[in-house]
Amino acid sequence: MMRGRIAYAGAIYEAYPEGNRVRLGDGRIRREDEVVWLAPIEVGTIFALGLNYAEHAKELQFSKQEEPLVFLKGPGTVIGHRGVTRRPADVTFMHYECELAVVIGRTAHNVKRATAMDHVAGYMIANDYAIRDYLENYYRPNLRVKNRDGGTVLGPWFVDAADIPDVTQLELRTYVNGALQQRGNTRDLVTDIAALIEYLSSFMTLAPGDVILTGTPEGIVNVNAGDEVVCEIDGLGRLVNVIVSDADFGRI
Amino acid sequence: MMRGRIAYAGAIYEAYPEGNRVRLGDGRIRREDEVVWLAPIEVGTIFALGLNYAEHAKELQFSKQEEPLVFLKGPGTVIGHRGVTRRPADVTFMHYECELAVVIGRTAHNVKRATAMDHVAGYMIANDYAIRDYLENYYRPNLRVKNRDGGTVLGPWFVDAADIPDVTQLELRTYVNGALQQRGNTRDLVTDIAALIEYLSSFMTLAPGDVILTGTPEGIVNVNAGDEVVCEIDGLGRLVNVIVSDADFGRI
Repeated sequence: MMRGRIAYAGAIYEAYPEGNRVRLGDGRIRREDEVVWLAPIEVGTIFALGLNYAEHAKELQFSKQEEPLVFLKGPGTVIGHRGVTRRPADVTFMHYECELAVVIGRTAHNVKRATAMDHVAGYMIANDYAIRDYLENYYRPNLRVKNRDGGTVLGPWFVDAADIPDVTQLELRTYVNGALQQRGNTRDLVTDIAALIEYLSSFMTLAPGDVILTGTPEGIVNVNAGDEVVCEIDGLGRLVNVIVSDADFGRI
Repeated sequence: MMRGRIAYAGAIYEAYPEGNRVRLGDGRIRREDEVVWLAPIEVGTIFALGLNYAEHAKELQFSKQEEPLVFLKGPGTVIGHRGVTRRPADVTFMHYECELAVVIGRTAHNVKRATAMDHVAGYMIANDYAIRDYLENYYRPNLRVKNRDGGTVLGPWFVDAADIPDVTQLELRTYVNGALQQRGNTRDLVTDIAALIEYLSSFMTLAPGDVILTGTPEGIVNVNAGDEVVCEIDGLGRLVNVIVSDADFGRI
Protein backbone atom coordinates (compact mmCIF):
# COMPACT_ATOMS: atom_id res chain seq x y z
CA MET A 1 0.00 0.00 0.00
CA MET A 2 1.08 3.58 -0.67
CA ARG A 3 0.31 6.03 2.09
CA GLY A 4 1.16 9.63 2.75
CA ARG A 5 0.70 12.01 5.64
CA ILE A 6 -0.95 15.33 5.03
CA ALA A 7 -2.27 18.32 6.95
CA TYR A 8 -5.69 19.59 5.97
CA ALA A 9 -8.31 21.74 7.63
CA GLY A 10 -6.83 21.68 11.10
CA ALA A 11 -5.56 18.13 11.42
CA ILE A 12 -3.05 15.56 10.19
CA TYR A 13 -4.34 12.58 8.20
CA GLU A 14 -3.00 9.47 6.59
CA ALA A 15 -3.70 9.81 2.87
CA TYR A 16 -3.81 7.53 -0.17
CA PRO A 17 -3.54 7.99 -3.91
CA GLU A 18 -6.89 8.43 -5.67
CA GLY A 19 -6.10 8.87 -9.37
CA ASN A 20 -4.58 12.33 -9.68
CA ARG A 21 -6.01 13.28 -6.34
CA VAL A 22 -5.55 12.25 -2.72
CA ARG A 23 -7.96 10.45 -0.41
CA LEU A 24 -7.78 11.39 3.26
CA GLY A 25 -8.16 8.79 5.98
CA ASP A 26 -11.64 10.13 6.72
CA GLY A 27 -12.76 9.54 3.14
CA ARG A 28 -12.54 13.08 1.74
CA ILE A 29 -10.94 13.37 -1.68
CA ARG A 30 -8.93 16.49 -2.44
CA ARG A 31 -6.63 17.84 -5.12
CA GLU A 32 -2.92 17.31 -4.49
CA ASP A 33 -2.38 21.06 -4.24
CA GLU A 34 -5.15 21.61 -1.71
CA VAL A 35 -3.34 19.79 1.10
CA VAL A 36 -0.02 20.23 2.88
CA TRP A 37 2.16 17.19 2.37
CA LEU A 38 4.29 16.16 5.33
CA ALA A 39 7.00 13.53 5.30
CA PRO A 40 5.17 10.17 5.08
CA ILE A 41 6.53 8.95 8.42
CA GLU A 42 7.86 10.36 11.69
CA VAL A 43 11.55 9.74 11.20
CA GLY A 44 13.99 8.39 13.78
CA THR A 45 17.68 8.53 12.95
CA ILE A 46 18.36 9.53 9.34
CA PHE A 47 21.43 7.83 7.88
CA ALA A 48 22.72 9.00 4.51
CA LEU A 49 25.25 7.42 2.18
CA GLY A 50 27.99 9.27 0.37
CA LEU A 51 29.34 7.98 -2.93
CA ASN A 52 27.24 4.84 -3.07
CA TYR A 53 26.95 4.75 -6.87
CA ALA A 54 30.34 4.32 -8.55
CA GLU A 55 29.64 6.66 -11.47
CA HIS A 56 28.57 9.43 -9.11
CA ALA A 57 31.78 9.04 -7.07
CA LYS A 58 33.76 9.54 -10.30
CA GLU A 59 31.69 12.62 -11.05
CA LEU A 60 32.78 14.19 -7.74
CA GLN A 61 36.39 13.09 -8.31
CA PHE A 62 36.68 11.34 -4.99
CA SER A 63 38.38 7.98 -4.86
CA LYS A 64 36.29 5.08 -3.68
CA GLN A 65 36.16 4.53 0.07
CA GLU A 66 36.92 1.16 1.58
CA GLU A 67 33.70 0.88 3.51
CA PRO A 68 30.30 2.58 3.31
CA LEU A 69 30.53 6.32 3.98
CA VAL A 70 27.56 6.96 6.25
CA PHE A 71 26.68 10.21 7.95
CA LEU A 72 23.66 11.52 9.83
CA LYS A 73 21.09 14.16 8.92
CA GLY A 74 19.01 15.96 11.55
CA PRO A 75 15.21 15.64 11.75
CA GLY A 76 14.95 19.42 11.34
CA THR A 77 15.97 19.13 7.67
CA VAL A 78 12.89 17.10 6.67
CA ILE A 79 10.06 18.45 4.55
CA GLY A 80 7.43 16.72 2.44
CA HIS A 81 6.22 16.63 -1.15
CA ARG A 82 5.55 19.99 -2.80
CA GLY A 83 7.53 21.85 -0.16
CA VAL A 84 10.03 24.55 -1.05
CA THR A 85 13.74 24.45 -0.34
CA ARG A 86 15.86 27.57 -0.03
CA ARG A 87 18.93 28.15 -2.12
CA PRO A 88 21.20 30.23 0.12
CA ALA A 89 22.25 33.49 -1.51
CA ASP A 90 25.94 32.96 -0.75
CA VAL A 91 26.56 29.54 -2.34
CA THR A 92 27.75 28.48 -5.78
CA PHE A 93 26.64 24.83 -6.04
CA MET A 94 23.34 23.43 -4.86
CA HIS A 95 22.66 19.90 -6.07
CA TYR A 96 19.58 17.71 -5.81
CA GLU A 97 20.19 14.03 -5.10
CA CYS A 98 17.44 11.55 -5.93
CA GLU A 99 17.74 8.59 -3.57
CA LEU A 100 15.91 5.47 -2.52
CA ALA A 101 15.01 5.88 1.18
CA VAL A 102 14.75 2.65 3.17
CA VAL A 103 12.54 2.67 6.27
CA ILE A 104 13.38 0.24 9.06
CA GLY A 105 10.34 -1.62 10.38
CA ARG A 106 11.80 -4.01 12.92
CA THR A 107 14.70 -3.46 15.32
CA ALA A 108 17.98 -4.66 13.82
CA HIS A 109 20.98 -5.59 15.94
CA ASN A 110 23.79 -7.74 14.56
CA VAL A 111 21.66 -8.76 11.63
CA LYS A 112 23.26 -10.77 8.85
CA ARG A 113 22.78 -10.13 5.18
CA ALA A 114 20.59 -13.19 4.64
CA THR A 115 17.80 -11.89 6.91
CA ALA A 116 18.47 -8.15 6.68
CA MET A 117 15.57 -7.42 4.34
CA ASP A 118 13.12 -8.76 6.96
CA HIS A 119 13.85 -5.57 8.90
CA VAL A 120 12.70 -3.24 6.12
CA ALA A 121 9.17 -1.82 6.45
CA GLY A 122 9.16 -0.03 3.11
CA TYR A 123 10.49 2.71 0.89
CA MET A 124 10.16 6.39 0.02
CA ILE A 125 11.71 8.76 -2.47
CA ALA A 126 14.23 11.21 -1.00
CA ASN A 127 15.75 14.33 -2.46
CA ASP A 128 18.86 14.76 -0.34
CA TYR A 129 20.08 18.24 -1.29
CA ALA A 130 23.77 19.13 -0.98
CA ILE A 131 25.48 22.50 -0.85
CA ARG A 132 28.65 21.43 -2.60
CA ASP A 133 30.64 24.55 -1.74
CA TYR A 134 31.47 23.08 1.64
CA LEU A 135 32.26 19.49 0.59
CA GLU A 136 35.98 19.60 1.34
CA ASN A 137 36.71 15.91 1.13
CA TYR A 138 34.79 12.69 1.28
CA TYR A 139 35.14 12.49 5.03
CA ARG A 140 33.29 15.74 5.43
CA PRO A 141 29.70 15.96 4.36
CA ASN A 142 29.47 18.63 7.03
CA LEU A 143 26.45 20.41 8.42
CA ARG A 144 26.58 23.20 5.87
CA VAL A 145 26.55 20.66 3.03
CA LYS A 146 23.86 18.37 4.36
CA ASN A 147 21.91 19.90 7.23
CA ARG A 148 20.16 22.88 5.71
CA ASP A 149 16.47 23.56 6.35
CA GLY A 150 14.39 21.71 3.78
CA GLY A 151 17.42 19.72 2.65
CA THR A 152 15.78 16.30 3.10
CA VAL A 153 12.62 16.07 0.99
CA LEU A 154 10.68 12.84 1.62
CA GLY A 155 7.57 11.45 -0.07
CA PRO A 156 5.00 11.70 -1.36
CA TRP A 157 4.38 8.13 -0.26
CA PHE A 158 5.62 5.46 2.06
CA VAL A 159 5.30 2.19 0.13
CA ASP A 160 5.24 -1.18 1.89
CA ALA A 161 8.23 -3.37 1.08
CA ALA A 162 5.84 -6.15 0.01
CA ASP A 163 4.59 -3.93 -2.82
CA ILE A 164 8.03 -3.54 -4.41
CA PRO A 165 8.72 -6.81 -6.22
CA ASP A 166 12.46 -6.21 -6.77
CA VAL A 167 14.10 -3.31 -4.96
CA THR A 168 17.41 -4.07 -6.69
CA GLN A 169 16.03 -3.06 -10.09
CA LEU A 170 14.39 0.33 -9.58
CA GLU A 171 15.12 3.18 -11.92
CA LEU A 172 15.64 6.64 -10.43
CA ARG A 173 15.08 9.77 -12.51
CA THR A 174 15.35 13.48 -11.74
CA TYR A 175 13.78 16.17 -13.91
CA VAL A 176 14.68 19.84 -13.57
CA ASN A 177 12.02 22.07 -15.11
CA GLY A 178 10.80 19.04 -17.06
CA ALA A 179 14.18 18.03 -18.50
CA LEU A 180 15.63 14.65 -17.50
CA GLN A 181 18.95 15.36 -15.76
CA GLN A 182 19.69 12.32 -13.60
CA ARG A 183 19.08 8.67 -14.28
CA GLY A 184 20.27 5.61 -12.42
CA ASN A 185 19.22 2.22 -11.19
CA THR A 186 19.42 0.65 -7.74
CA ARG A 187 21.22 -2.30 -9.33
CA ASP A 188 24.32 -0.06 -9.35
CA LEU A 189 24.43 0.54 -5.59
CA VAL A 190 28.00 -0.01 -4.38
CA THR A 191 26.74 -1.28 -1.00
CA ASP A 192 23.24 -2.65 -1.33
CA ILE A 193 20.43 -2.38 1.21
CA ALA A 194 21.00 -5.75 2.87
CA ALA A 195 24.72 -5.03 3.23
CA LEU A 196 24.02 -1.58 4.67
CA ILE A 197 21.74 -3.07 7.33
CA GLU A 198 24.33 -5.73 8.13
CA TYR A 199 27.06 -3.07 8.36
CA LEU A 200 25.17 -0.56 10.53
CA SER A 201 23.60 -3.16 12.80
CA SER A 202 27.03 -4.69 13.44
CA PHE A 203 27.99 -1.78 15.68
CA MET A 204 24.69 -0.12 16.64
CA THR A 205 20.99 -0.86 16.81
CA LEU A 206 18.59 0.25 14.08
CA ALA A 207 15.08 1.09 15.29
CA PRO A 208 11.69 1.23 13.57
CA GLY A 209 11.36 4.58 11.83
CA ASP A 210 15.07 4.91 11.16
CA VAL A 211 15.69 5.86 7.55
CA ILE A 212 18.63 5.03 5.29
CA LEU A 213 19.14 7.33 2.30
CA THR A 214 21.03 5.00 0.01
CA GLY A 215 22.96 7.51 -2.10
CA THR A 216 22.49 9.10 -5.49
CA PRO A 217 23.57 8.09 -9.01
CA GLU A 218 25.43 10.31 -11.45
CA GLY A 219 23.81 13.29 -13.10
CA ILE A 220 23.89 16.14 -10.65
CA VAL A 221 23.70 19.70 -11.87
CA ASN A 222 23.43 23.00 -10.10
CA VAL A 223 19.90 24.22 -9.41
CA ASN A 224 18.72 27.78 -9.04
CA ALA A 225 15.88 29.67 -7.47
CA GLY A 226 12.69 29.04 -9.39
CA ASP A 227 13.66 25.53 -10.55
CA GLU A 228 11.17 22.72 -10.12
CA VAL A 229 12.93 19.47 -9.21
CA VAL A 230 10.99 16.21 -9.61
CA CYS A 231 12.48 12.93 -8.37
CA GLU A 232 10.89 9.70 -9.57
CA ILE A 233 11.55 6.11 -8.57
CA ASP A 234 9.78 3.13 -10.15
CA GLY A 235 6.80 2.16 -8.03
CA LEU A 236 7.24 4.98 -5.49
CA GLY A 237 5.74 7.96 -7.30
CA ARG A 238 6.99 11.47 -8.08
CA LEU A 239 8.42 13.79 -5.45
CA VAL A 240 8.08 17.47 -6.37
CA ASN A 241 10.15 20.27 -4.85
CA VAL A 242 10.69 23.88 -5.83
CA ILE A 243 13.84 25.89 -5.15
CA VAL A 244 13.34 29.40 -3.83
CA SER A 245 15.84 32.15 -3.14
CA ASP A 246 16.59 33.31 0.37
CA ALA A 247 14.97 36.60 -0.54
CA ASP A 248 11.77 35.04 -1.88
CA PHE A 249 11.45 32.51 0.93
CA GLY A 250 9.73 35.02 3.17
CA ARG A 251 7.12 35.68 0.52
CA ILE A 252 6.09 32.06 -0.22
CA MET B 1 14.11 24.15 38.70
CA MET B 2 15.77 20.74 38.28
CA ARG B 3 13.60 18.11 36.71
CA GLY B 4 14.17 14.60 35.47
CA ARG B 5 12.11 12.05 33.60
CA ILE B 6 11.75 8.60 35.05
CA ALA B 7 9.83 5.40 34.45
CA TYR B 8 8.23 3.78 37.47
CA ALA B 9 5.47 1.26 38.01
CA GLY B 10 4.10 1.32 34.50
CA ALA B 11 4.36 4.98 33.53
CA ILE B 12 6.70 7.87 32.80
CA TYR B 13 6.83 10.77 35.27
CA GLU B 14 8.53 14.09 35.63
CA ALA B 15 10.66 13.88 38.76
CA TYR B 16 12.43 16.26 41.13
CA PRO B 17 15.29 16.00 43.59
CA GLU B 18 14.21 15.28 47.17
CA GLY B 19 17.38 15.10 49.25
CA ASN B 20 19.08 11.86 48.23
CA ARG B 21 15.82 10.57 46.81
CA VAL B 22 13.54 11.49 43.94
CA ARG B 23 10.00 12.88 44.07
CA LEU B 24 7.69 11.79 41.25
CA GLY B 25 5.22 14.21 39.69
CA ASP B 26 2.41 12.45 41.54
CA GLY B 27 4.05 13.06 44.92
CA ARG B 28 5.56 9.64 45.56
CA ILE B 29 9.12 9.70 46.89
CA ARG B 30 11.44 6.86 45.89
CA ARG B 31 15.09 5.93 46.13
CA GLU B 32 17.23 6.86 43.11
CA ASP B 33 17.87 3.19 42.39
CA GLU B 34 14.19 2.21 42.49
CA VAL B 35 13.30 4.08 39.33
CA VAL B 36 14.47 3.95 35.70
CA TRP B 37 16.02 7.25 34.68
CA LEU B 38 15.34 8.38 31.13
CA ALA B 39 16.98 11.31 29.39
CA PRO B 40 15.44 14.44 30.99
CA ILE B 41 13.93 15.64 27.69
CA GLU B 42 12.76 14.23 24.37
CA VAL B 43 15.64 15.30 22.17
CA GLY B 44 15.41 16.80 18.70
CA THR B 45 18.63 17.13 16.72
CA ILE B 46 21.74 16.40 18.78
CA PHE B 47 24.75 18.52 17.78
CA ALA B 48 28.13 17.68 19.23
CA LEU B 49 31.36 19.65 19.23
CA GLY B 50 34.77 18.24 18.55
CA LEU B 51 37.87 19.83 20.04
CA ASN B 52 36.11 22.72 21.74
CA TYR B 53 38.54 22.94 24.65
CA ALA B 54 42.05 23.87 23.53
CA GLU B 55 43.85 21.59 26.00
CA HIS B 56 41.78 18.61 24.91
CA ALA B 57 42.58 19.28 21.25
CA LYS B 58 46.30 19.16 22.14
CA GLU B 59 45.73 15.90 23.98
CA LEU B 60 44.37 14.33 20.79
CA GLN B 61 47.19 15.86 18.74
CA PHE B 62 44.86 17.48 16.24
CA SER B 63 45.59 21.01 15.15
CA LYS B 64 42.95 23.58 15.89
CA GLN B 65 40.21 23.93 13.31
CA GLU B 66 39.31 27.28 11.84
CA GLU B 67 35.65 27.07 12.72
CA PRO B 68 33.58 24.99 15.14
CA LEU B 69 33.72 21.29 14.31
CA VAL B 70 30.10 20.19 14.72
CA PHE B 71 28.67 16.78 13.96
CA LEU B 72 25.38 15.02 14.66
CA LYS B 73 24.50 12.15 16.97
CA GLY B 74 21.42 10.00 16.44
CA PRO B 75 18.56 9.86 18.96
CA GLY B 76 19.11 6.11 19.25
CA THR B 77 22.33 6.69 21.19
CA VAL B 78 20.61 8.37 24.13
CA ILE B 79 20.25 6.82 27.56
CA GLY B 80 19.64 8.33 30.99
CA HIS B 81 21.27 8.45 34.40
CA ARG B 82 22.33 5.11 35.89
CA GLY B 83 22.12 3.39 32.52
CA VAL B 84 24.82 1.04 31.31
CA THR B 85 26.95 1.54 28.21
CA ARG B 86 28.61 -1.33 26.36
CA ARG B 87 32.30 -1.45 25.71
CA PRO B 88 32.60 -3.32 22.41
CA ALA B 89 34.86 -6.37 22.70
CA ASP B 90 36.89 -5.44 19.62
CA VAL B 91 38.02 -1.91 20.49
CA THR B 92 41.14 -0.54 22.19
CA PHE B 93 40.11 2.96 23.31
CA MET B 94 36.78 3.91 24.82
CA HIS B 95 36.72 7.37 26.34
CA TYR B 96 34.10 9.18 28.42
CA GLU B 97 33.61 12.87 27.64
CA CYS B 98 31.95 15.03 30.27
CA GLU B 99 30.17 17.90 28.51
CA LEU B 100 27.76 20.71 29.18
CA ALA B 101 24.61 20.02 27.14
CA VAL B 102 22.67 23.10 26.05
CA VAL B 103 18.94 22.66 25.36
CA ILE B 104 17.32 25.04 22.90
CA GLY B 105 14.02 26.45 24.15
CA ARG B 106 12.99 28.87 21.43
CA THR B 107 13.46 28.56 17.66
CA ALA B 108 16.68 30.19 16.52
CA HIS B 109 17.22 31.38 12.96
CA ASN B 110 19.92 33.90 12.11
CA VAL B 111 20.34 34.84 15.74
CA LYS B 112 23.17 37.13 16.71
CA ARG B 113 25.46 36.62 19.66
CA ALA B 114 23.89 39.43 21.70
CA THR B 115 20.51 37.70 21.95
CA ALA B 116 21.58 34.08 21.47
CA MET B 117 21.24 33.12 25.12
CA ASP B 118 17.53 34.03 25.03
CA HIS B 119 17.08 30.86 22.95
CA VAL B 120 18.46 28.55 25.64
CA ALA B 121 15.91 26.70 27.79
CA GLY B 122 18.43 25.08 30.09
CA TYR B 123 21.25 22.64 30.64
CA MET B 124 22.04 19.00 31.31
CA ILE B 125 25.16 16.95 31.91
CA ALA B 126 26.20 14.76 28.98
CA ASN B 127 28.66 11.90 28.83
CA ASP B 128 29.44 11.75 25.12
CA TYR B 129 31.38 8.49 24.78
CA ALA B 130 33.87 8.03 21.96
CA ILE B 131 35.40 4.89 20.52
CA ARG B 132 38.74 6.41 19.63
CA ASP B 133 39.90 3.51 17.48
CA TYR B 134 37.97 4.91 14.55
CA LEU B 135 38.82 8.59 14.92
CA GLU B 136 40.98 8.87 11.82
CA ASN B 137 41.21 12.64 11.62
CA TYR B 138 39.33 15.58 13.01
CA TYR B 139 37.00 15.63 10.06
CA ARG B 140 35.78 12.20 10.92
CA PRO B 141 33.99 11.62 14.18
CA ASN B 142 32.29 8.81 12.29
CA LEU B 143 29.39 6.60 13.32
CA ARG B 144 31.60 3.99 14.92
CA VAL B 145 33.23 6.65 17.09
CA LYS B 146 30.13 8.54 18.12
CA ASN B 147 26.95 6.64 17.35
CA ARG B 148 27.13 3.55 19.51
CA ASP B 149 24.14 2.41 21.57
CA GLY B 150 24.22 4.12 24.96
CA GLY B 151 26.93 6.51 23.74
CA THR B 152 25.06 9.69 24.74
CA VAL B 153 24.25 9.64 28.45
CA LEU B 154 22.07 12.59 29.51
CA GLY B 155 20.87 13.70 32.93
CA PRO B 156 19.98 13.19 35.65
CA TRP B 157 18.35 16.63 35.47
CA PHE B 158 17.31 19.29 33.07
CA VAL B 159 18.04 22.60 34.84
CA ASP B 160 16.37 25.85 33.76
CA ALA B 161 18.78 28.41 32.38
CA ALA B 162 17.52 30.94 34.95
CA ASP B 163 18.86 28.72 37.74
CA ILE B 164 22.44 28.81 36.48
CA PRO B 165 23.82 32.22 37.44
CA ASP B 166 26.92 32.09 35.20
CA VAL B 167 27.15 29.32 32.61
CA THR B 168 30.61 30.55 31.58
CA GLN B 169 32.13 29.54 34.95
CA LEU B 170 31.01 25.98 35.55
CA GLU B 171 33.49 23.34 36.58
CA LEU B 172 33.22 19.90 34.98
CA ARG B 173 34.63 16.82 36.72
CA THR B 174 34.73 13.15 35.79
CA TYR B 175 35.44 10.40 38.30
CA VAL B 176 36.27 6.86 37.26
CA ASN B 177 35.72 4.41 40.11
CA GLY B 178 35.84 7.34 42.50
CA ALA B 179 39.14 8.82 41.24
CA LEU B 180 39.06 12.30 39.69
CA GLN B 181 40.30 11.91 36.09
CA GLN B 182 38.97 14.89 34.17
CA ARG B 183 38.57 18.47 35.26
CA GLY B 184 37.78 21.57 33.24
CA ASN B 185 35.77 24.75 33.24
CA THR B 186 33.34 26.15 30.72
CA ARG B 187 35.37 29.38 30.74
CA ASP B 188 37.83 27.51 28.50
CA LEU B 189 35.37 26.75 25.70
CA VAL B 190 36.98 27.67 22.37
CA THR B 191 33.60 28.61 20.89
CA ASP B 192 31.19 29.59 23.63
CA ILE B 193 27.46 28.86 23.75
CA ALA B 194 26.31 32.19 22.32
CA ALA B 195 28.79 31.88 19.44
CA LEU B 196 27.68 28.32 18.73
CA ILE B 197 24.04 29.40 18.49
CA GLU B 198 25.02 32.30 16.24
CA TYR B 199 27.09 29.97 14.05
CA LEU B 200 24.54 27.15 13.69
CA SER B 201 21.54 29.45 13.26
CA SER B 202 23.35 31.34 10.50
CA PHE B 203 22.82 28.45 8.08
CA MET B 204 20.02 26.38 9.62
CA THR B 205 17.18 26.66 12.11
CA LEU B 206 17.51 25.40 15.67
CA ALA B 207 14.28 24.10 17.20
CA PRO B 208 13.10 23.63 20.79
CA GLY B 209 14.46 20.35 22.10
CA ASP B 210 17.60 20.51 19.99
CA VAL B 211 20.67 19.80 22.11
CA ILE B 212 24.22 21.09 21.70
CA LEU B 213 26.93 19.03 23.39
CA THR B 214 29.59 21.68 23.82
CA GLY B 215 32.72 19.51 23.88
CA THR B 216 34.93 18.03 26.55
CA PRO B 217 38.01 19.32 28.38
CA GLU B 218 41.30 17.47 28.72
CA GLY B 219 41.65 14.41 30.91
CA ILE B 220 40.33 11.47 28.95
CA VAL B 221 41.46 7.97 29.80
CA ASN B 222 40.44 4.59 28.54
CA VAL B 223 37.59 2.93 30.44
CA ASN B 224 36.92 -0.76 30.82
CA ALA B 225 34.03 -3.05 31.58
CA GLY B 226 33.03 -2.71 35.22
CA ASP B 227 34.11 0.93 35.53
CA GLU B 228 31.73 3.42 37.08
CA VAL B 229 31.97 6.80 35.37
CA VAL B 230 30.50 9.82 37.16
CA CYS B 231 30.30 13.19 35.42
CA GLU B 232 29.63 16.27 37.53
CA ILE B 233 28.98 19.85 36.53
CA ASP B 234 28.47 22.68 39.04
CA GLY B 235 24.76 23.17 39.63
CA LEU B 236 23.65 20.32 37.36
CA GLY B 237 24.19 17.28 39.56
CA ARG B 238 26.01 13.96 39.10
CA LEU B 239 25.49 11.71 36.08
CA VAL B 240 26.31 8.07 36.80
CA ASN B 241 27.04 5.47 34.14
CA VAL B 242 28.53 2.00 34.29
CA ILE B 243 30.53 0.35 31.52
CA VAL B 244 29.68 -3.26 30.75
CA SER B 245 31.28 -5.72 28.39
CA ASP B 246 29.53 -6.94 25.28
CA ALA B 247 29.40 -10.36 26.89
CA ASP B 248 27.88 -9.13 30.17
CA PHE B 249 25.39 -6.80 28.50
CA GLY B 250 22.91 -9.59 27.97
CA ARG B 251 23.00 -10.46 31.66
CA ILE B 252 22.37 -6.95 33.07
